[in-house]
Amino acid sequence: MSDAPESAEINVSIPPLDDDARAAASERQQRLTKPPGSLGRLETMAAEIAAMQSTPEPAVDPALVVTMAADHGVAREGVSAYPQSVTQAMVETVANDGAAVNALADAGDVDSLVVDMGVAGDVPPGVIDHHIADGTANMAAEPAMTAAQAVDSIRRGRDVVATHAADAGAVALGEMGIANTTASAAITALVTDHSVEAVTGHGTGIDEETRQQKVETIERAIAVTDPDPDDPLDVLRCVGGFEIGGLVGVTLEAASRRVPVVVDGVIAGAAALLAVEIAPRAADYLLGSHESVEPGHEAQLEQLSIKPCFDYGLGLGEGTGAALALSVYRAACQAHTGMATFAEAGIDPE
Amino acid sequence: MSDAPESAEINVSIPPLDDDARAAASERQQRLTKPPGSLGRLETMAAEIAAMQSTPEPAVDPALVVTMAADHGVAREGVSAYPQSVTQAMVETVANDGAAVNALADAGDVDSLVVDMGVAGDVPPGVIDHHIADGTANMAAEPAMTAAQAVDSIRRGRDVVATHAADAGAVALGEMGIANTTASAAITALVTDHSVEAVTGHGTGIDEETRQQKVETIERAIAVTDPDPDDPLDVLRCVGGFEIGGLVGVTLEAASRRVPVVVDGVIAGAAALLAVEIAPRAADYLLGSHESVEPGHEAQLEQLSIKPCFDYGLGLGEGTGAALALSVYRAACQAHTGMATFAEAGIDPE
Repeated sequence: MSDAPESAEINVSIPPLDDDARAAASERQQRLTKPPGSLGRLETMAAEIAAMQSTPEPAVDPALVVTMAADHGVAREGVSAYPQSVTQAMVETVANDGAAVNALADAGDVDSLVVDMGVAGDVPPGVIDHHIADGTANMAAEPAMTAAQAVDSIRRGRDVVATHAADAGAVALGEMGIANTTASAAITALVTDHSVEAVTGHGTGIDEETRQQKVETIERAIAVTDPDPDDPLDVLRCVGGFEIGGLVGVTLEAASRRVPVVVDGVIAGAAALLAVEIAPRAADYLLGSHESVEPGHEAQLEQLSIKPCFDYGLGLGEGTGAALALSVYRAACQAHTGMATFAEAGIDPE
Repeated sequence: MSDAPESAEINVSIPPLDDDARAAASERQQRLTKPPGSLGRLETMAAEIAAMQSTPEPAVDPALVVTMAADHGVAREGVSAYPQSVTQAMVETVANDGAAVNALADAGDVDSLVVDMGVAGDVPPGVIDHHIADGTANMAAEPAMTAAQAVDSIRRGRDVVATHAADAGAVALGEMGIANTTASAAITALVTDHSVEAVTGHGTGIDEETRQQKVETIERAIAVTDPDPDDPLDVLRCVGGFEIGGLVGVTLEAASRRVPVVVDGVIAGAAALLAVEIAPRAADYLLGSHESVEPGHEAQLEQLSIKPCFDYGLGLGEGTGAALALSVYRAACQAHTGMATFAEAGIDPE
């Protein structure tokens, strides 16, 4: 591990939540034309976002879904129901506006972009180029990436936010990459101190026998690469992925700019775990979306202290759940800012 | 009960669900560029709406939130935290675009309209006039309305759909009316055969003592007016409200036109219960929205066999939960229709 970089290499400064803005938001909620508390969790969502954005008038728009794609050398261990080439094909599908995340971003009237963090093969125009390599190395045999690549992936993720979402109201984390639930399960096991068995699921639809093989592959990868579980950059280097590192960077940079980050399923969740290990205050800027069918998700949500907005049995990734959750957070913010107060409406609530 | 009309007076014909459209939708889901089943409940939502709309390409747009308002004579029994005049004030607030339902409709990019079904007092321009009377009679002393008014309220609700939502992709049920959780609890107790105690909650925020008084008021109203629980028009006449009757009409007319109906909280739920008692097939066209904090909601959802989309502790009414749920159903439909198939994307999923 002599080439493992220190977390100090990621120089990020995340401001504390603005408790005054939260209090002002909560106070405003009491004056809006509704019985106090009757908008339930939508009220607390608005107050949370107010504290993140340091404003009594929180807003998620303009919101951006960032879908980062990369390949994984561990795919050759047969841990996925799909061949590695599907990553490239799905990047094309997203670029052609035909993927689930496109449909959900359109439905929610939010922008989306797709980033090549390390897809094996050519990608079409329109895909943002942060290509690090043609996929990671096979972590079952050697570390997934070099220490320099780990740092670089995070830097590139930060760059995406600085370039495309500097003034966003929220960013939603999305990803694509055949075998990336293998990487995310490894990260989740290491960071949350759960067994690999407990956090490894059926990914894109593998059977139980393949899942057992996936568990064994992850255990072998951890044994071979020997990551330091207390060093998030070392975990990323040994068992991570370029898109996961990219999403770590997105999370850190967004949090540093007071931009709320909507977490998606287990891969985005793994990135969020690493981001919080690097900079604990990043946790304050995370928002939940769905409750994934993947077993590692619950451990992630617990460690991150975030609460899902809905449970539809999603297991797709791409940022689909996060894109849909943006509609909920938008509703919370628009109720908060758009409603009249009792005074404005000329109603005496007493 | 000699003046109680027969349900046959509501002459409505509701088509059966289109099982072929549902099957075609489910089959299409298997060919979209995602692992089969990975969009979870969004897939079944799209298939359900396909069966309702009798098309393999379901769509909720254009969607309309219909908020019906009326006053309730039983308000003078002190069953609410607010005076009756708040109904009129809230209708004005909605007309001025300052209420929660306006904000949530705006956030979800759907149209909304507000209908005066019987508000005591003047309402501003822009409110659709279906005024039956200045509120119902006090059901604790006499039937809330005449049999003719009960039928008329339903007819007017049907007219709203025929005039404003004939070609809608979905309608969301909303309501306003001080003391209308009292009416809805009475209806729910009668139709679902639960005790009044079990289905009566804290409405807009009354204390436990007032809630007990509300329970006693409802029990007295049922004893005094003696509705026939097997006759939905008689239940509406004795313990209903004009806005509730209106929403019964909205539900029946929408279902007759294959327009899905998104149910909101306990008042909309009470209307849905009556609609299904009048025309059982109406149940096939109902969609859930939120899980209300009101205790009668669970009994309603169970009887109606609808499933909420989220649980945010909402207890406001107006159609707020239903308006927000439209975003979820839109997402489900747009994923279904907007995604590429594997063949279109040139991907061989095998």
